[in-house]
Amino acid sequence: MILINGVETDHITVNDRGFQYGDGLFETIEVVDGQPVFLEQHLIRLSSGCSKLNIPNPYIKQLTDEIYSVCKDSKKAVLKLIITRGGGGRGYRQPESIHPTRVISLHPFPEHPPTYAKHGINVRFCNTRLGLNPALAGIKHLNRLEQIMARAEWDDHAIQEGIMLDINNHVIEGTMSNIFYVKSKIIYTASLELAGVTGVMRGVIKRFIAEHKLTFIEHDYGKEDLLVADEVFVSNSIIGIWPVKQIGDVSFAVGNMTKQLQAWLVQFKKQGLADAP
Amino acid sequence: MILINGVETDHITVNDRGFQYGDGLFETIEVVDGQPVFLEQHLIRLSSGCSKLNIPNPYIKQLTDEIYSVCKDSKKAVLKLIITRGGGGRGYRQPESIHPTRVISLHPFPEHPPTYAKHGINVRFCNTRLGLNPALAGIKHLNRLEQIMARAEWDDHAIQEGIMLDINNHVIEGTMSNIFYVKSKIIYTASLELAGVTGVMRGVIKRFIAEHKLTFIEHDYGKEDLLVADEVFVSNSIIGIWPVKQIGDVSFAVGNMTKQLQAWLVQFKKQGLADAP
Repeated sequence: MILINGVETDHITVNDRGFQYGDGLFETIEVVDGQPVFLEQHLIRLSSGCSKLNIPNPYIKQLTDEIYSVCKDSKKAVLKLIITRGGGGRGYRQPESIHPTRVISLHPFPEHPPTYAKHGINVRFCNTRLGLNPALAGIKHLNRLEQIMARAEWDDHAIQEGIMLDINNHVIEGTMSNIFYVKSKIIYTASLELAGVTGVMRGVIKRFIAEHKLTFIEHDYGKEDLLVADEVFVSNSIIGIWPVKQIGDVSFAVGNMTKQLQAWLVQFKKQGLADAP
Repeated sequence: MILINGVETDHITVNDRGFQYGDGLFETIEVVDGQPVFLEQHLIRLSSGCSKLNIPNPYIKQLTDEIYSVCKDSKKAVLKLIITRGGGGRGYRQPESIHPTRVISLHPFPEHPPTYAKHGINVRFCNTRLGLNPALAGIKHLNRLEQIMARAEWDDHAIQEGIMLDINNHVIEGTMSNIFYVKSKIIYTASLELAGVTGVMRGVIKRFIAEHKLTFIEHDYGKEDLLVADEVFVSNSIIGIWPVKQIGDVSFAVGNMTKQLQAWLVQFKKQGLADAP
């Protein structure tokens, strides 16, 4: 089922600026037992992205109603929400009156082997670099050619994720995930001020870190820091937290910090679902 | 009239990767007396972009037939051609078998006052920077949020174009045009190896420069080089060549080199249209 501006259809006008220019943003939300997981966090990030792109914020009550109507009968799925600047304007110039388009669609939940979460995944470094753009950094916008080109670099099913560096050789994120590493009990991740997407799951992990008063540093770091880490893990809203067991030739054990964060995530999601309306 | 994969319709499936990720490219072509101007040059650039993005090249005979069928009755218009990677794939990963989408649409020709071409335009420097990405540089792809944010910076009708710098403070291009400057009879423009779009009109100008053995340098340059130039002009397929008469507080005369290039363009277009099938 796909709802476009509240109407069930799977087609959109080609004049939509989402199609013409990638002029919009999206959220990818886990659905469990008819409930969109971390919906509030997704809507907060969406709202922040809309503000940065100067797209009027969607009316939250209407949007939430539509999201629930799409996912209410689903046991396990992925809900994708796209907001674009709508139609109109002249070339890149936005229209004087902006009427955003909202698209809500439901997709099968990807069937990843449980071993990924338990024993870790294999990752590689991508050659495709992320451009630096402070105005767009952090936003989950619809301009995703860099990720597509990075993901097209490998076709080996034994490799689950690719790590993207920026043009200054700083590690930023995975093609579809954020990356953390642990060294001497300190948790590190990229600051994402110039590139990257501030994942909702990244925010949830930061919340656990704060609640449990763990030492945490957001900074610029390179490949070499990652390769000598005690633990490495990736995160996103759909996969949750996956340990990294191998980057190229370098192996990592599934560390205690990673397991602890996974445990808190399981507990927090149970709690969240129990609290749901 | 809009043709999508040869069928007259104005709607596209939301699953198209052009809408989901900006996974595609486009051309904006001037139409005069039913003829697409510089069609060959547009198709060459499109083909080069498809190769770089690993999108199968469209079948040129079919595409050309469709383009002519859309524009044949138009006296003066803008034809927009979009090619996307089509539907399918899982997330950013492209599908194993790619079936590109082609969208051909006709739009009113923008009515710019003739004074822009004759006496020049006013431009400003934009704050929004272009990210650097060698893999995407040069391609007229569908990821255009940087241009949209730059164009949203001003709403003053007295200013016709904005100049975009990259994050290293090099001048790259206008929001919708390429930029050239002339100093001591040498013509300069940005090399566009890390950012920017290699405009079809830019290619036509380079051809004039080569044919007439003018001195031409593609290089990295800054604001200050532009501000002390003898002549500055911008170009694209729709506007042709416009002199710049003012950048902020700095004024420029409409120079002889700019006028010469404009004259060659008029002549070349007449010739091209006379040669058309």
